[in-house]
Amino acid sequence: MSRPRIAITMGDPAGIGPEVIASAWSRELLDICYPVVVGNPEVMRRAAGIVGRQIDIRLVTGVSDIAATEAILPCCKAADDNAMDAPIGRMDARAGQAAYDCLIQATEMALEGTVDAVVTAPLSKAALWRAGHHYPGHTELLAELCGVPEVAMMLYLAPGPPLEGQHGLGVVHVTLHQGLRGALEHLSTDAVLAKTRLISDFLRRLQIKQPRIGVAALNPHAGEDSLFGDEEVRVIRPAVIQANEEEIQATGPLPADTLMVRARDGEFEGVVAMYHDQGHIALKLLGMRRAVNITLGLPIIRTSVAHGTAFDIAGQGQADPRSLLEAARVARRLWEAARLHASDARKRE
Amino acid sequence: MSRPRIAITMGDPAGIGPEVIASAWSRELLDICYPVVVGNPEVMRRAAGIVGRQIDIRLVTGVSDIAATEAILPCCKAADDNAMDAPIGRMDARAGQAAYDCLIQATEMALEGTVDAVVTAPLSKAALWRAGHHYPGHTELLAELCGVPEVAMMLYLAPGPPLEGQHGLGVVHVTLHQGLRGALEHLSTDAVLAKTRLISDFLRRLQIKQPRIGVAALNPHAGEDSLFGDEEVRVIRPAVIQANEEEIQATGPLPADTLMVRARDGEFEGVVAMYHDQGHIALKLLGMRRAVNITLGLPIIRTSVAHGTAFDIAGQGQADPRSLLEAARVARRLWEAARLHASDARKRE
Repeated sequence: MSRPRIAITMGDPAGIGPEVIASAWSRELLDICYPVVVGNPEVMRRAAGIVGRQIDIRLVTGVSDIAATEAILPCCKAADDNAMDAPIGRMDARAGQAAYDCLIQATEMALEGTVDAVVTAPLSKAALWRAGHHYPGHTELLAELCGVPEVAMMLYLAPGPPLEGQHGLGVVHVTLHQGLRGALEHLSTDAVLAKTRLISDFLRRLQIKQPRIGVAALNPHAGEDSLFGDEEVRVIRPAVIQANEEEIQATGPLPADTLMVRARDGEFEGVVAMYHDQGHIALKLLGMRRAVNITLGLPIIRTSVAHGTAFDIAGQGQADPRSLLEAARVARRLWEAARLHASDARKRE
Repeated sequence: MSRPRIAITMGDPAGIGPEVIASAWSRELLDICYPVVVGNPEVMRRAAGIVGRQIDIRLVTGVSDIAATEAILPCCKAADDNAMDAPIGRMDARAGQAAYDCLIQATEMALEGTVDAVVTAPLSKAALWRAGHHYPGHTELLAELCGVPEVAMMLYLAPGPPLEGQHGLGVVHVTLHQGLRGALEHLSTDAVLAKTRLISDFLRRLQIKQPRIGVAALNPHAGEDSLFGDEEVRVIRPAVIQANEEEIQATGPLPADTLMVRARDGEFEGVVAMYHDQGHIALKLLGMRRAVNITLGLPIIRTSVAHGTAFDIAGQGQADPRSLLEAARVARRLWEAARLHASDARKRE
C-alpha cells in the first residue's frame, strides 16, 4: 500500500511545535507518509538548529514540488516572517496569527485534495485569542473551516500495552474547552447522542464491525440511584437508549472511574466522556506520549499531538517527537481505512 | 515489631464483604495483624461456604478471647441474625442496618483502644439510607462517631509499579459523595486548605519529611488563564498560597490530567483532587486492586477496600480479596508509623 500525503502544520512558532517537527524528521516519518510542513521556512530553520539537526529547509508550494528526504524538509510558507519576532516560550499575538494561518492553509490543501491528511502541531489558545481569533481550540476552528455543524474531539490510543483490546481505544468528549460549570450547562441528551454517533461511525470506519461503546456517567457512582445528581437519568440514559435503537452498541451511563479500567481491559473500543478531564485524565495515564487527538465529523482526516505548546521547555531542544510520529501513523491508518471503506462501497454498487 | 489488633467490619451482608473476608482469611492476613471480624457469625459461616473454605467461625466478645488461626475466625456479633434474611445481591434495609451496626461497634472498639485499627468491608450507601441512616458513606459516619469536624477520604497506593516514587501516592478529595453540581457549590478556599493540611499531616506521619503535594485545578487546562473558569484564581490558588505560608510544600492549581501523570512518575507524594472522579479515575487506573481508602482526620486508624458491595457478583465466590489484604497492610503501616511518631515525640520531651 502506498503512503498518504500529509500536511504537517507548524503550530505556534513560540511553542515546541517547530522543534518537535524537526526532531521527528526521520526515515520513520518518511516511511509513514509523504510529508510537507505548512509553516514558515525561517522558523523551521531555527528549529532545526535548536534540535541540532542538519536539515535543508526548502520553500515549496505543495507536497509534490520536491521529494522529502531525511536531509530535505519541504515547507509551504503559510506564515509571515514576523512570526520569527515572537519570542520563544511566550504567548504572543504574532505567533497566534502564524499558527492560525498555517491551519487555514493546511485545511484548504486537504479540502482541495492536494494532501490526504492534516497533522497539527500544538497552538496556544491564548495566543490565538490575542491575535483576534476567538476559538476555544483547533477543533472548533476546523469545524468552521470545513463548514460542518457537529464535530468532536477524540483522544485515541492505538492498540498496545497497557490496552488489552486489539482495536485501541477512542475517547470522545461531549463538552471540551470550557469550565466545568459551563460544561454542566451544555450537557444535553442531543449532545451525548451526537458524540456517541460520531465515535460509533469512526470506529466502524476503522473496520470494527460492532464497536462497543461505554458512555460515562457525570456524577460519582453514576449518581448512586439519583442520590448524587440526576443527569444520569434525565440526560444521559435517554441518549444511550436512542443510540441502542439506532443499533449502536452503547452501554451506560457507567461510573467513570471503573469504566476507564474496563475500557483499558478491553471491554470497550470507545468511551463517551462528559467533560474534558474525565477523558484526559484516563488517556494521559494510559499513554501520554502515544495519545493522538482526532477530530471526528470533518470531511478531512486530521490528527494532532495530544500535548500543548509547552512554553516552559520551548527553545531547549528537549521536546519529545513521539506524539507527532504517532499522530502521523494514526492519520495513515485512517487514510488506509477510508480507502478500504471507499473500495467496499464501490463493490457494493 | 509486633502486630496491630485489627477489627474487620463485615460490611453489607448482601454484598461481597463477607466473602472477601473469608477469602482473605489466611496466613498472609495473620502475619499482618491479630484480626477479629465484627459482624454476624451466621453471615460469616455462609460466606465461608460460598468461597468453599473450612473455617470455624467462633463467637467472641473481643480480639483477645480466642487466637485467630487459618482455621479459626473470631467474630464479634454486632449485627442481628435477621441480616441473614436480606437476599444476597440486593439492596436491603436489614443489610444496611447490619453494616451500620458493625461500623458502630468496630469504631467503639478502636476508640476504647481494644483494637488498634479498623478495616472496613464495603457497605451500600443506598441500603444505609433505606435503614434510616442518612450518611453519604463511611467517611461522614465515622466523622460523627469520632466527634471530629474535619475529615477527608483519601485513596492511597503503596509504593510499587506503576508508581515511580518510593513513598506511594495519596489522593485526597475536597468534595466526595455528591453530584458534580453540588461539588461545585461546596468548593471553597477553606475546604481546599483543610484537605491540603490533612494530607500533608498524614504524609508527614508516614515519615516523609517534606511531602510534595500537587493541588489539582477544577477546570480543563487549569482554566487556561481564566478562559475556562475562574475557580483556579478565585478559590484554589489562595489555598495553595496559604498552605505555602504554613510550610506545606503544595504546588498548584495544576491541570488535573498532567498532574496525575506527574504524580505517577514520582513528582508528588500527595494530590488534592477537587471532586470524586478526578481522583478515582486516576487511582483506579493506577491500581484498582491495590488501592486502599483511608479516612484522614480521625483519632483512630481506619482503612478500607476501595471497591464497593458489587451486588452483581455477590454470592458467587468470585470476589477478589487483594484489596482487603492491602487495606490491612496499610493499616499496619499507619500503626507502625504512629508508634514511631509517638516514640519520637517522647524522645523530644
